[in-house]
Amino acid sequence: MRRAVSLAGAGLGRTSPNPAVGCVVLGADGTAVGEGFHPGAGQPHAEVEALAMAGERARGGTAVVTLEPCAHTGRTGPCADALLAAGIARVVYAVPDPNPAAAGGAARLRRAGVEVVGEVLRAEAERGNELWLTAVRRGRPCVTWKFGATLDGRTAAPDGTSRWITGPDSRRDAHALRAAHDAVLVGSGTLRADDPHLGLRHGVEGRAPLRVVLDRDGTIPADARVLDDAAPTLVVTGPHTPKPVLGDRHEVLRVPLVDGSLDVRVLLDELWARDVRSVLLEGGARLAASFVGRGLLDRVVAYVSPLLLGAGARPVLDDFGASTLMAGLRLHLGEVSRLGDDVRLLLRVRALPGEAP
Amino acid sequence: MRRAVSLAGAGLGRTSPNPAVGCVVLGADGTAVGEGFHPGAGQPHAEVEALAMAGERARGGTAVVTLEPCAHTGRTGPCADALLAAGIARVVYAVPDPNPAAAGGAARLRRAGVEVVGEVLRAEAERGNELWLTAVRRGRPCVTWKFGATLDGRTAAPDGTSRWITGPDSRRDAHALRAAHDAVLVGSGTLRADDPHLGLRHGVEGRAPLRVVLDRDGTIPADARVLDDAAPTLVVTGPHTPKPVLGDRHEVLRVPLVDGSLDVRVLLDELWARDVRSVLLEGGARLAASFVGRGLLDRVVAYVSPLLLGAGARPVLDDFGASTLMAGLRLHLGEVSRLGDDVRLLLRVRALPGEAP
Repeated sequence: MRRAVSLAGAGLGRTSPNPAVGCVVLGADGTAVGEGFHPGAGQPHAEVEALAMAGERARGGTAVVTLEPCAHTGRTGPCADALLAAGIARVVYAVPDPNPAAAGGAARLRRAGVEVVGEVLRAEAERGNELWLTAVRRGRPCVTWKFGATLDGRTAAPDGTSRWITGPDSRRDAHALRAAHDAVLVGSGTLRADDPHLGLRHGVEGRAPLRVVLDRDGTIPADARVLDDAAPTLVVTGPHTPKPVLGDRHEVLRVPLVDGSLDVRVLLDELWARDVRSVLLEGGARLAASFVGRGLLDRVVAYVSPLLLGAGARPVLDDFGASTLMAGLRLHLGEVSRLGDDVRLLLRVRALPGEAP
Repeated sequence: MRRAVSLAGAGLGRTSPNPAVGCVVLGADGTAVGEGFHPGAGQPHAEVEALAMAGERARGGTAVVTLEPCAHTGRTGPCADALLAAGIARVVYAVPDPNPAAAGGAARLRRAGVEVVGEVLRAEAERGNELWLTAVRRGRPCVTWKFGATLDGRTAAPDGTSRWITGPDSRRDAHALRAAHDAVLVGSGTLRADDPHLGLRHGVEGRAPLRVVLDRDGTIPADARVLDDAAPTLVVTGPHTPKPVLGDRHEVLRVPLVDGSLDVRVLLDELWARDVRSVLLEGGARLAASFVGRGLLDRVVAYVSPLLLGAGARPVLDDFGASTLMAGLRLHLGEVSRLGDDVRLLLRVRALPGEAP
């Protein structure tokens, strides 16, 4: 299973709206005879790849796969049927399929007489597919808020200076984080203050995420860097805002207002319909507060720099309505690491019922 | 030298205004024949202890000591002379004595024909004696600011609730930190909000630090917990404030005002005169800002909890006049550790010239 988890990793960041999956096929004598991973939507599933490599040697053998084999026909046929057709006698999987449309593969295999063992190395396989699993379980894209701030929670001095609060190692890591997400989101405040490009830099390779800009008042300048030709950009604006002037590659999306702000819940649904399963919020104290306040945050990646600025400086997170301690958002501390002189923290909103802890 | 550093640790937290020192004496054949540490002011220095244990076996041998042997007569005689009298042929030390009154021991030994080797395992020995060394080099008590805050730099919700932002492991660690300092300092805001006791709890053993309360307006209530009989408390007030009513064990200290606040620089001098070499600031956004703003902070111990409260909550550090990024206080990141669900960071103001990095 470790090998299958490692194979799944080869597709990570490129499979949306599908999960990353890895599969190893063992022959009847227990030796590995095939392996595969899912390289992206519309392409063969991991099981099909591994079975193709194994050929006749799969008969009477075992399929080891990181996710419960699917039972539905999407852009490709059901993997459960492919495993049966290949004569597989035993299936070992790590994570039950949380997708209601695709689940039921284990049951179908058992009915056909195949021995099925689930939840092997489940926690390890969950971590590899964390963004997709969170999205499917919560029925909306997984939302990660990334920020760089001082030890006292500030992102810019009173005069607006903010370069650089975090060090080069943190900034490089933040770019790698972008490549792992389907979409990157900023608010109009960050757009005005930083004119960000939101593309991949620092030598980070991978698929560039969809750039999404919240622009309630339709004030995005036509020469904003985020509107260059490097990748498509989605400009999100209000229902009656005059349409911003954009290049051909870019799209305007209108969403309703809630309490005067763009409705980020509707935005997430629209992004889901565009096959986005993971969204990275990049800074913006107001943007982050609107997601936190509506319970739409799943993960935080914080780069904390060894700097103090004091309460005159800009806060990393706006008021989101927590008036008492119990109303704060309590997270679960994940990995802690050191990046140069900064500390990187990964935190998660506590697991929902039915999720691995 | 590792053994000597470890011996020095036995006296830590009890030797002020002296440093913690450890010493191992090797006989002429290189075997350990004596060891000692300095247990506290007025008691024998580490070298004298180790020489006493070694007796005649010290003759022609080596003394390994964590700090350059002193050359002055304080409450005890100069160690350099004691080493010469015992017939020591070689002295190996880690840290040069930064105390102008006591330095010169190495030179005196060399003049007497002893082979002297300095700066062996210096960085390791410096860490063990960090508070004392910082104090002597900077000519005032070493000031450490300890705080517990949320990931976004908040210490209480808008309604004042703050129990508990950090977890039990962090709170226990913070008590151990108290025991390592000569004095604990809070401002009147923290006094009113929390009515802290500032004693040692959580099963932490050691010498209880001097409790110091800033009370510019003389409003400390007679029944404040910090005024109980557990230990003496120093109440610091302004030059013309009506004298607060205190029990017999407690003392009122008057210091001048600077810009309407108590002059913490004068306070540090007064604490130095009372043999205090290390001060722990316990929370208080205004208190911390007054030390940061005057360049009187040496170290920070931060307990960061995985909680978000937003900008309506109370900031951990008040405005200290940093209007631009370059005016922020940049620290050097030291040890990072995990305490339950919190992260503990130790940070230091960058080393002064002549200090080990």
